[in-house]
Amino acid sequence: MLIKNLRYIVTMDSQRRVIRDGAIFIEGNRILDVGRNGGLSRKYSREEIIDGSGMVAIPGLIQAHTHSPMTLMRGYADDLPLMDWLQKKIWPLEAKLKPNDIYYGSLLANLEMISFGVTTFSDMYPHPEEILKAVRKSGLRAVISPAIFEEVDKNSNVKNAKKFLRNESDKIKIALGPHSPYACTKEELLEVRDISEETGAIVHIHASETQEEVRQIKEKYGMRPIEFLDSIGLLTERTLLAHSVWVSDKEINLIHKRGAKVAHCPISNTKLASGIAPIEKLKGVVSLGSDGPSSNNNLDIFEEIKAVALLHKVHNLNPTLISAQQALEMATINGARALGLEEEIGSIETGKRADVVLVDFRKPHLTPLYNPVSHLVYACNGEDVDTVVVDGKILMRHRKFSLDSKGIMKKVERIKEDLLRRVN
Amino acid sequence: MLIKNLRYIVTMDSQRRVIRDGAIFIEGNRILDVGRNGGLSRKYSREEIIDGSGMVAIPGLIQAHTHSPMTLMRGYADDLPLMDWLQKKIWPLEAKLKPNDIYYGSLLANLEMISFGVTTFSDMYPHPEEILKAVRKSGLRAVISPAIFEEVDKNSNVKNAKKFLRNESDKIKIALGPHSPYACTKEELLEVRDISEETGAIVHIHASETQEEVRQIKEKYGMRPIEFLDSIGLLTERTLLAHSVWVSDKEINLIHKRGAKVAHCPISNTKLASGIAPIEKLKGVVSLGSDGPSSNNNLDIFEEIKAVALLHKVHNLNPTLISAQQALEMATINGARALGLEEEIGSIETGKRADVVLVDFRKPHLTPLYNPVSHLVYACNGEDVDTVVVDGKILMRHRKFSLDSKGIMKKVERIKEDLLRRVN
Repeated sequence: MLIKNLRYIVTMDSQRRVIRDGAIFIEGNRILDVGRNGGLSRKYSREEIIDGSGMVAIPGLIQAHTHSPMTLMRGYADDLPLMDWLQKKIWPLEAKLKPNDIYYGSLLANLEMISFGVTTFSDMYPHPEEILKAVRKSGLRAVISPAIFEEVDKNSNVKNAKKFLRNESDKIKIALGPHSPYACTKEELLEVRDISEETGAIVHIHASETQEEVRQIKEKYGMRPIEFLDSIGLLTERTLLAHSVWVSDKEINLIHKRGAKVAHCPISNTKLASGIAPIEKLKGVVSLGSDGPSSNNNLDIFEEIKAVALLHKVHNLNPTLISAQQALEMATINGARALGLEEEIGSIETGKRADVVLVDFRKPHLTPLYNPVSHLVYACNGEDVDTVVVDGKILMRHRKFSLDSKGIMKKVERIKEDLLRRVN
Repeated sequence: MLIKNLRYIVTMDSQRRVIRDGAIFIEGNRILDVGRNGGLSRKYSREEIIDGSGMVAIPGLIQAHTHSPMTLMRGYADDLPLMDWLQKKIWPLEAKLKPNDIYYGSLLANLEMISFGVTTFSDMYPHPEEILKAVRKSGLRAVISPAIFEEVDKNSNVKNAKKFLRNESDKIKIALGPHSPYACTKEELLEVRDISEETGAIVHIHASETQEEVRQIKEKYGMRPIEFLDSIGLLTERTLLAHSVWVSDKEINLIHKRGAKVAHCPISNTKLASGIAPIEKLKGVVSLGSDGPSSNNNLDIFEEIKAVALLHKVHNLNPTLISAQQALEMATINGARALGLEEEIGSIETGKRADVVLVDFRKPHLTPLYNPVSHLVYACNGEDVDTVVVDGKILMRHRKFSLDSKGIMKKVERIKEDLLRRVN
């Protein structure tokens, strides 16, 4: 398959090359050649052609932290104090979810992420088997972390999570999802550490999201959350810390020293008023997530890319912090690193998996074009995505999905009506 | 013209009514009836029909502060210290602009605003005659403020601005655009005050955008910028203050006392790292603007609506600040008030001008639907806009423009190439 006539390719390779008038040659699920349109068009003239006229190709975007089934609660409640929102609104509705609802909620999220150019996502939720089913249906690449917090949900225990690891496949990686230092027991966390050491599985954990959490953990363990994780050997190069808003300089040093990664969720952190993470100090290890769609309220990574570029500038009153290039790295190559997939995805390079997104630049708000990276970060939105290729397969072309989008949306609307009946 | 089968109408009327299964009847340039679909469909069965199935109708959005021709510099330079960005990048390019470039830059901005559901915009720039021409071409409603800062640009003087007032027409209002307390002389500002008193024209002025500006004005006049404007009688119910980031409690009281309005530009203020305005104290008088597209880098008011709802929550660590409803008010009825047009636009009500936008909710990220106001603020983006009606005329339908969008984009791309030649 030859994607030709591309206006630009923003490769995100190690030299951050931007190729004007480019083409990409894909065979099976791998990128075999990347270069100028003229040369590649002659070389691969007999292949299936995808016309990329007016398009800018970027690596498939990586959503490093979400809870995909929470589409079901999207817009159900907003603008409330955190504990009211959780205890009076989100948790009562969540308690009424059936496994099949979780499947459809996640499938809708898969559809939405495809619509916004996400090709890989990292999920944490109970009932991981339903999320697995949704990902297999959608064709996305994913890292699924079964939630672990047995005291909250008895099926979300370490034993089940360990068993679930056997579902790992070529395109779907399984991680361990201990919820957080406050919702897990120390024993659970120690077991997770051992399983991760034994299997190499990534540990995907919320840490230091709110000031209240830091207070609680200090009270319980006499240390801050990330210090605590380190003290029990759970801060390693396989650790993906979601949020990390309230981290001390000492903790930042620990993160860098251990090679841990951070999934920054700027929009969720602003909407829930959790705080502003010190991203300017964490930069290189930062990937981006939308968090659950009920605290966002969408899964558009383009919004997170713009938010991360803006928020830290104003917070530090320094317009040079977090450049467009750095923001885009967070959603591509840094995301790949966060998930241990940097050899496979995160850039458009020969030998990598064919996860490619075409963004349609023939729009008033993307005109004129001086610099494609600037537009991708500051002017684009997710609906500028025209075509999505994952592992060499086209999941969206000219904004038409391979999935039955109408059927999925109708089904989720019906689940919502039913949920409201169940909760009232 | 009957817009029927609407999933919801978010009226933004004085009771903030949201009508399920609605219809809107328009005759000429006015809304004549708003209500349930069944009743209106029977009553106006013989009229021209716009099918609004799956759509949510909202009042046309109001862009309270922009410099439309600055589309020409969109993405030319980002992430620089403010003075480097202005002096080394923006101003040298701006100095090379010819009147015809300004026309096309503004026309492109008109097109972009239509694409994002903006039906009225408030502009400040030199060469207002070119902007007037662009607005007449596009069919948008506008308030055009000829820039006044004779020391910067000799044609941008009070005399020319006063003459320009005669171009006011039914759909296009002319205001006075003294640039700022720092770029205008006191004499210019006093003349503007007198003309505004005499003619009733709105005074559209930048004020208190940066800390540096406050420092300068205090040094020059011994007071803060908005205190200074008040001291010379230029803070009235006709004053529209752009930005107002660094305002003291005393100045906030003055704004409320005089009935002045604020055009808040959250994304520009974050991108340029100007600061975070105390919107939670100003609320009722706040409208929204994108500022020039080179400090944003688009004109999508949906982004500003989400930004205003998020930014002040996290800045104050209070998730209840600026509700979805309040954020939407800023882009509709508050915007109308800021421009002295609250009797004519800003809500969907019988007797008002027919400025109506249909947003297509049949999208994965807008599913399921609990509350349309929540989705409009937290989940939508500008490209969800399907249909734009201004003064009873359809300017966009199913995202197809009445303007020649391809021709305009091509022309602006050519102007960009030429500008780069002129500047190098």
